[in-house]
Amino acid sequence: MKQNRSAPVVDTSRSPHARLRPVPANAVTLSDTFWEPRRKINRTVTLPSQYRHLEETGRLDNFRRASGKKTGIPFQGIYFNDSDVYKWLEAAAWTLATHDDPALAAMVDAVVTEIEVAQQADGYLNTYYMLERAEQRWSNLRDMHELYCAGHFLQAAVAHHRATGDDRLLNVACRLADCICAVFGPEEAGKRAQSDGHEEIEMALVELYRVTGDAKYLRQAQFFIDVRGRGAISGSSYHQDHKPFRELDEMIGHAVRMVYLDCGAADVCLETGEAALKAAMDRQWDNMIRRRIYVTGGLGARYEGEAFGKDYELPNERAYTETCAAIGSVMWNHRMLAIASEARYADLIEHTLYNAVLPGLSLDGQAYFYQNPLRDDGKHRRQPWFGCACCPPNVARLLASLPGYFYSVDDRGIYAHLYAEGTAQITLPEGRTVGLTQHTRYPWEGDVRLTVEGEGVFSLFLRIPAWCGEGSAAAALEVAGEPSGVTLTPGTYAEVRRAWTPGDTIHLRLPMPVRRIECHPCVAENAGHVALQRGPIVYCVEQADNLGVDVHDLALPADAELRPEWRADLLGGVVTLRGTAQTAPPDTAWEGRLYRTVGAPAFSTPGNSVSLTAIPYYAWANRESGPMQVWIRNR
Amino acid sequence: MKQNRSAPVVDTSRSPHARLRPVPANAVTLSDTFWEPRRKINRTVTLPSQYRHLEETGRLDNFRRASGKKTGIPFQGIYFNDSDVYKWLEAAAWTLATHDDPALAAMVDAVVTEIEVAQQADGYLNTYYMLERAEQRWSNLRDMHELYCAGHFLQAAVAHHRATGDDRLLNVACRLADCICAVFGPEEAGKRAQSDGHEEIEMALVELYRVTGDAKYLRQAQFFIDVRGRGAISGSSYHQDHKPFRELDEMIGHAVRMVYLDCGAADVCLETGEAALKAAMDRQWDNMIRRRIYVTGGLGARYEGEAFGKDYELPNERAYTETCAAIGSVMWNHRMLAIASEARYADLIEHTLYNAVLPGLSLDGQAYFYQNPLRDDGKHRRQPWFGCACCPPNVARLLASLPGYFYSVDDRGIYAHLYAEGTAQITLPEGRTVGLTQHTRYPWEGDVRLTVEGEGVFSLFLRIPAWCGEGSAAAALEVAGEPSGVTLTPGTYAEVRRAWTPGDTIHLRLPMPVRRIECHPCVAENAGHVALQRGPIVYCVEQADNLGVDVHDLALPADAELRPEWRADLLGGVVTLRGTAQTAPPDTAWEGRLYRTVGAPAFSTPGNSVSLTAIPYYAWANRESGPMQVWIRNR
Repeated sequence: MKQNRSAPVVDTSRSPHARLRPVPANAVTLSDTFWEPRRKINRTVTLPSQYRHLEETGRLDNFRRASGKKTGIPFQGIYFNDSDVYKWLEAAAWTLATHDDPALAAMVDAVVTEIEVAQQADGYLNTYYMLERAEQRWSNLRDMHELYCAGHFLQAAVAHHRATGDDRLLNVACRLADCICAVFGPEEAGKRAQSDGHEEIEMALVELYRVTGDAKYLRQAQFFIDVRGRGAISGSSYHQDHKPFRELDEMIGHAVRMVYLDCGAADVCLETGEAALKAAMDRQWDNMIRRRIYVTGGLGARYEGEAFGKDYELPNERAYTETCAAIGSVMWNHRMLAIASEARYADLIEHTLYNAVLPGLSLDGQAYFYQNPLRDDGKHRRQPWFGCACCPPNVARLLASLPGYFYSVDDRGIYAHLYAEGTAQITLPEGRTVGLTQHTRYPWEGDVRLTVEGEGVFSLFLRIPAWCGEGSAAAALEVAGEPSGVTLTPGTYAEVRRAWTPGDTIHLRLPMPVRRIECHPCVAENAGHVALQRGPIVYCVEQADNLGVDVHDLALPADAELRPEWRADLLGGVVTLRGTAQTAPPDTAWEGRLYRTVGAPAFSTPGNSVSLTAIPYYAWANRESGPMQVWIRNR
Repeated sequence: MKQNRSAPVVDTSRSPHARLRPVPANAVTLSDTFWEPRRKINRTVTLPSQYRHLEETGRLDNFRRASGKKTGIPFQGIYFNDSDVYKWLEAAAWTLATHDDPALAAMVDAVVTEIEVAQQADGYLNTYYMLERAEQRWSNLRDMHELYCAGHFLQAAVAHHRATGDDRLLNVACRLADCICAVFGPEEAGKRAQSDGHEEIEMALVELYRVTGDAKYLRQAQFFIDVRGRGAISGSSYHQDHKPFRELDEMIGHAVRMVYLDCGAADVCLETGEAALKAAMDRQWDNMIRRRIYVTGGLGARYEGEAFGKDYELPNERAYTETCAAIGSVMWNHRMLAIASEARYADLIEHTLYNAVLPGLSLDGQAYFYQNPLRDDGKHRRQPWFGCACCPPNVARLLASLPGYFYSVDDRGIYAHLYAEGTAQITLPEGRTVGLTQHTRYPWEGDVRLTVEGEGVFSLFLRIPAWCGEGSAAAALEVAGEPSGVTLTPGTYAEVRRAWTPGDTIHLRLPMPVRRIECHPCVAENAGHVALQRGPIVYCVEQADNLGVDVHDLALPADAELRPEWRADLLGGVVTLRGTAQTAPPDTAWEGRLYRTVGAPAFSTPGNSVSLTAIPYYAWANRESGPMQVWIRNR
């Protein structure tokens, strides 16, 4: 039955200004040993456990209270807790798009009903502002996240419709969106020219437009972007309200809000093609990638305001790098990719998935990081849930929808953005369906063998990751057993265009030397340090693998060889990096001082040689606690 | 008339466990060109302008409202705004201790009356919790600063009494303290075993005990220290409530609260001599000095929670280093000095005064820093006032009381802690009074000539600053024209003991070479950087003196000579440091990237030679705005 439906993650199939069209999540079947086991845990462990949290913390009871099913209880938890239910629902919906799971489907149905009956007659839906607070509806847009919650609901409803074909939740969504459209808009139309302190509604409305075809929702999304920067919310950069979106030239303020706003702007741009929106996003993206992104892909340097810092402000131990900001970055780059079909966006999606999103989740799928420091003393540990639980269901919905990020199509052919063992049934814009199979041990090995089951002339665009340009050996590509002759430029797509014969094979080799990464000298904290990366994976050193030495004391000689080693037994199966490092001797030269007049060397004797083992950063804090760091001192 | 009074800043004259006794503020007359002009500005510009702020922001009206003099107005501002009035009053009182100023005295009298008539019949005094909020008195000790405000009032009352001899405010203080003593105490006494989220009341009660002799106030102070760490406040380290004081071994949580708590503990220790209190403070002090203090003496690394960070967490651009925390550090070290008579505490007082307190105030005495970053892009500017205006009157009261920090006495003689041109009339414990004159251009020159007008055998203890131990030339001391023969150990007091003849002179030479300071390698951000210090003054480079180059691009060759140069015309008169540095060339090697695989040198060509001028850090941001940094890259 699923074959008859189409569950694209962002449906640009008919977007006039999209270069790339989606390959729906349900057209892709992963069977790899990296993502698919995680997606299985997501389905079988994470989603049920999150459902229990929703129930136990009163988040579902808030809906029952709003509908009158439960009486005599107060609203429970934080005022924006509805959004956690919606994100869980969206995650469950994407899961149902790719897996038949009757138990999960029943859970989803029950939640859909709770929401449906809680909606008010005029379409309004927010369990905090019902009953005794009904009069305060829309009274504090800056702080109270009403439109944010609405946006997450619309996203859930759209996902539910795409995944199941069911209209129930979509109808609720349209009624809520109509209620919003009636209230907010230009003053000259007699409406309130305001928006929410926390962006989210913008991208949700564009997707609702894509599902319903009702242009009112697109106009409303555009309005919510246009109204920012006039001081109607707060005038503050924290809310991206200090200047109009089209004048922004930096990533600023609350990091999740910033990237969600960019998602909405990109969605509008896909429909309108407005150059000023694209230009503003280009400036922001450049600022991010050149000045304000962690080596992991993490975003948001500051605890205060959960915000982007200044240029080059990237503290490691006090990195905020909220998991949700990384997820928002994946979502934004996915939309930028659809606008521009440039591999740099897919490069960043891949990098962020492995190194900034995934660290937010424990290997057992039941504990979460909100902040993701790049250095720690071992006290920062994943938690089973949070009072403000935005991150857990956000990770779940991204993992659930992940197959939808693998491929795109355009009039020339198929784009392969991500690599993992699996199959896909890809429908080209002209209507033909092509089967594609990937055989690979990616991300641990860079060999990818693709089999194409299709006929006729079309192109296969293969992403050559930018990191391939910085290793010793170059990428290589064979088509049907012969060198392809295609120029492989790292950071672009290699286009293989030919008349295909069913069963044609392609062999892409992406060498994965261990790379030492250095950081721009303006990030003073990283001077004299290196990070380790192999393929798309960023590494860290954690205490558990380096007994007998404080990992913060490790220093890496410039000529130390680092050997990759596959360890099936470790952390769910990882390639570790092993080599010989040095430890700093006890710092007798400092005699307990923090400052001293320049004179004696910091360390008066050479350190001892010790073995060093680095593990993928995403896997840290899954064993006994202890110090960890991504940036390792040079020696 | 002032000769008959004694205005010690902390009155340890009768404290059984004090090694040092105070030399009152009104016994010391400064006539130097560094502090005294600042104290004059404090008296003639700062205090009147702060009074206007108190009036214009409704802080004084809050008292008039409480007393019924003004009706029909709401409480204005933040709930702890009373404390700003009290700190201003304390500053004004200390000013009256050393200067006859009828206009200021009239202002003080008016404020005293406003407070006196606002006090409730049962002694309670807090203008936020009167009238419509009277029922909520003491209902939220954790957050609402009631005892904190009370503490600042007691300090003001004690200062007012010492400076003027007037009992009016002291009587109000005793009634308020009695009201507090009746409510708070051990549960077994039927009282509430709680304390305030913001420490301050502890040290205030000990001083009230010292003035009144009523031991109840000392016991109450001790109770407020003992009750912390049992979770009665919040259980959080932010409030220093996570473990009992005597178990603390680090500086933790909100920085101002932490140092204020230490002031209270030190005050109690001066009276009780309890070893466990002293041991806990010693551990905290070691942790601070070895791991958690800025090179400026500033305290508190984190914006979030205005708090101490972890060990070695000392970001420069995002340094919080609240001015109040530096002031609290001076206050705590002043008490530790009285307990232990060790020069390291006086060293830190001096260092903090010049480099962490003073930057909080503009040269014109009318603008303030709350945070004091060690690196900035020029956007951080002093403000004329704050909604939360704790820092401005705190700077004022410290400058007003500064003469009281210069000297102490013990049974052997006189301690000179600080150096500045001026005179003092110092009464030894035995009763004899000795006149002491300092002739010096300190802090710009290290020559100090002291003249002693006294007879008999006693010691003069001269602080040999710790920084003398790290220059090229050693300190030297002549007594009555002859080498003293006294061993001069940096970081200790040199004891000159002799039978004095009136007019005996002492010549202390403290060489002031320009020193490059390096930081412990665990502060990664400072690796490869140096700070500059000469004498007690820490320097910075600011854009205004280094035109044509971004000061953040400056790098200092290891062999670059740095010449001190007196500039009477600059910033109120400063010694600048001048030399030749290099600029980094445009970073073509990075091509806009933030990260790259280790390979090409960061800067492929040598930089250009440019002249560098460094100014005292305290004087930055007094001219046109521009980048500034304390730590300069090594080349």
